Amino acid sequence: MKEQQKTRITVDIYGQQYSIVGTESSSHIRLVASIVDDKMREISAKNPTLDTSKLAVLTAVNIVHEYIKLKDEYDRLLRKMNKEKDDDSDD
Amino acid sequence: MKEQQKTRITVDIYGQQYSIVGTESSSHIRLVASIVDDKMREISAKNPTLDTSKLAVLTAVNIVHEYIKLKDEYDRLLRKMNKEKDDDSDD
Repeated sequence: MKEQQKTRITVDIYGQQYSIVGTESSSHIRLVASIVDDKMREISAKNPTLDTSKLAVLTAVNIVHEYIKLKDEYDRLLRKMNKEKDDDSDD
Repeated sequence: MKEQQKTRITVDIYGQQYSIVGTESSSHIRLVASIVDDKMREISAKNPTLDTSKLAVLTAVNIVHEYIKLKDEYDRLLRKMNKEKDDDSDD
């Protein structure tokens, strides 16, 4: 197995501390944590009665929705690129 | 403002019911919910002592990480596509 340097850092998300271990840089982990924190605060502002657990689940739902939209856009771009290549080779 | 049809459906995520309102189709909302549910179960299996709230936050962290990776890949593809166009126009 490939030996990779592991980073362990502690981040604060919505007032709770999380110890995150990964092969990514600390700055990447901090960026990810700050995006989750921002999104939780945004959803909480719109739904002030939600408890933290439901708020976190709805945050995850929100992010998966964004992910699928981006994935569709990515696949569309990939198809377009391959089509242009095919068209070029037809010339 | 553009009038869009809103869908309200109830989904089950990690044993809790959530009422989700959006302009997306029910099948899209169900797909999003099932991805979050799967991811929570996957993370929970690896960390059985986590409470639901922390589990949901770590699920969100995980998905944001995947989102950023996909976004980087998407931007790379877009740059490549634009570069190929520029190269073609130089011919």
